[in-house]
Amino acid sequence: TKRYSITILPGDGIGPETISVAKDVLKLIGSLEGIEFGFQEMPLGGSALDLTGVPLPDETLLAAKQSNAVLLGAIGGYKWDNNPKHLKPEMGLLQLREGLKVFANLRPATVLPQLVDSSTLKKEVAEGVDLMVVRELTGGIYFGKPRGIGTNENGEEIGFNTEVYASYEIDRIARVGFEIARKRNKKLCSVDKANVLEASMFWRDRVTAIASEYPDVELSHMYVDNAAMQLVRNPKQFDTILTNNIFGDILSDEASMITGGIGMLPSASLGASGPGLFEPIHGSAPDIAGQDKANPLATILSVAMLLKYGLGEENAAKRIENAVLDTLDKGFRTGDIYSAGNKLVGCKEMGEEVLKSV
Amino acid sequence: TKRYSITILPGDGIGPETISVAKDVLKLIGSLEGIEFGFQEMPLGGSALDLTGVPLPDETLLAAKQSNAVLLGAIGGYKWDNNPKHLKPEMGLLQLREGLKVFANLRPATVLPQLVDSSTLKKEVAEGVDLMVVRELTGGIYFGKPRGIGTNENGEEIGFNTEVYASYEIDRIARVGFEIARKRNKKLCSVDKANVLEASMFWRDRVTAIASEYPDVELSHMYVDNAAMQLVRNPKQFDTILTNNIFGDILSDEASMITGGIGMLPSASLGASGPGLFEPIHGSAPDIAGQDKANPLATILSVAMLLKYGLGEENAAKRIENAVLDTLDKGFRTGDIYSAGNKLVGCKEMGEEVLKSV
Ligand SMILES: CC(C)[C@H](C(=O)O)[C@@H](O)C(=O)O
Ligand SMILES: CC(C)[C@H](C(=O)O)[C@@H](O)C(=O)O
Repeated sequence: TKRYSITILPGDGIGPETISVAKDVLKLIGSLEGIEFGFQEMPLGGSALDLTGVPLPDETLLAAKQSNAVLLGAIGGYKWDNNPKHLKPEMGLLQLREGLKVFANLRPATVLPQLVDSSTLKKEVAEGVDLMVVRELTGGIYFGKPRGIGTNENGEEIGFNTEVYASYEIDRIARVGFEIARKRNKKLCSVDKANVLEASMFWRDRVTAIASEYPDVELSHMYVDNAAMQLVRNPKQFDTILTNNIFGDILSDEASMITGGIGMLPSASLGASGPGLFEPIHGSAPDIAGQDKANPLATILSVAMLLKYGLGEENAAKRIENAVLDTLDKGFRTGDIYSAGNKLVGCKEMGEEVLKSV
Repeated sequence: TKRYSITILPGDGIGPETISVAKDVLKLIGSLEGIEFGFQEMPLGGSALDLTGVPLPDETLLAAKQSNAVLLGAIGGYKWDNNPKHLKPEMGLLQLREGLKVFANLRPATVLPQLVDSSTLKKEVAEGVDLMVVRELTGGIYFGKPRGIGTNENGEEIGFNTEVYASYEIDRIARVGFEIARKRNKKLCSVDKANVLEASMFWRDRVTAIASEYPDVELSHMYVDNAAMQLVRNPKQFDTILTNNIFGDILSDEASMITGGIGMLPSASLGASGPGLFEPIHGSAPDIAGQDKANPLATILSVAMLLKYGLGEENAAKRIENAVLDTLDKGFRTGDIYSAGNKLVGCKEMGEEVLKSV
């Protein structure tokens, strides 16, 4: 039997609840597919702060690095909102991404036929949306230096950050973008602000250069302000979107809201080698934490991404995806995706229903 | 009689067509309200490049500075798309904003009852949306230095830009935000990425400090990724949004698309003193230029903003806004906002109808 070690980071808020359900799904699929999973649970974010005083303990990063894949719930909560920057839960996530060198963040935004009514977009605009945002995750203004709060040459106080991309950083994320597009509908739209920013002009040049390696993929370029509009006007025009860290942060969240099912959307963060990081794109939802109300499907679908992109177990991934669709077909809904005529269930019951359908 | 000198920058594409109509509206309102307008037309953008070799000729900037207000059509077109950066039409616009020191960009996004069906959002989500984006326009990553394409200490090629805000830049745009919110529903939402960027932490601190001058306005803070989602989920939650240059570029375009009426939306760019710059937020639409198909209402409504914010002629502004609403009530529609049961008209005819209703 194949064996994989999985680091589990339940995190904060609803994280532990959805993770517990997703772990059961992973165990079941393992027994059905003849795969053995070893699990190690480690603290991250707010819970790590409470326990150890830092948002990413060394032990957590080490365990993550030594495993085959990392599954994360969610982090953050009111309790730590006023902490100084280096003691915020989010910092743990940023450090983890950096530590694992997972530079490629894949964020699908899919409107499932069963949930098309959850979108605030008109049905004819929302139905059939199936796009993937490929976001650069370990560079750009998130990590660029110099940065800080200081004084300029006129003695005025300033806050400053640096948006910077080196050629190798653009080349490798561009290749991920082209590879993903190649497996989808072969259309890659690179989003930048090349009419204003040099960092974007350079980005556009490098992406265009890499395109010659992928003659079967159609490359287009779009300014970020236009992309933010086009996602609302006609999201179906997009297949794969390639963009930098900050634009990807904004556009992937916009795209996820367009699907109406933010409680449904998983993500994968991959490096050149080593374990990938898999997590739902929703947050820790402290307002409903501990109430068995969370939608576990995004975390369960993150498990599917873990199997597909992290371990190459496409078959097991497909079974989980199908089990989620079956469960929706049977009418089970958590509160966030509930509509009349369906059956309202909690986090645990939703998980049990998915288990039945695997 | 009152006299004002207006610099007119028709620009490129559909710019000259919508400007011609808007100028007629301005003349008529002048004669009705006892205001005399002197007009000076100057080149900007692509047309300036063709004529003089630069996107913002010195004469244009000088004329603009010496006038009481500047009305701009639109700039840009395929013809100049491959020009080097400093010879792109957009550069003329950026230089004009910088030259006029118009640091405050006001971008309303309103869903008119007559046009609620043009939105891709469901009717119940779109109807009643009435928000204002206050975007910082002469600072941040658009103008920050150092910037360029060069080599880092490892010899790798890099593209880089600097996001930087000094306290006085944040303070003055924050005050504009609070003043605008005070005249509206007294809710100001400041958008940043303070969980990651020092420039945003500083922004948030300054905005919070300025809030003490406006105890009657309710201030909230939101991360930019969340704001991009909330605009899709429930745009009605927003009254006035305050944000930096690049986030404002993205969010104001997203907000405008949510209204479904991008051909309807004006903007104002204001400085501490001196003439303001007024322009529709739509682009130069080279594909329909010269075909009498453009919607002139955004430029006409920019004239209303010019009168209100630029010259303090609120009465004249109100008359124009009402004339536009009347014209829509009568069922006149250009192609971009056409729906069955209405009367399809071209740019000129739409202008004539507005003139009749003034
Ligand atoms: C929590 C925050 C630091 C993070 C980001 O900005 O990357 C989040 O918004 C995300 O997109 O995963
Ligand atoms: C044309 C471009 C430079 C400009 C900007 O980014 O500011 C435009 O998108 C706008 O929003 O007015």
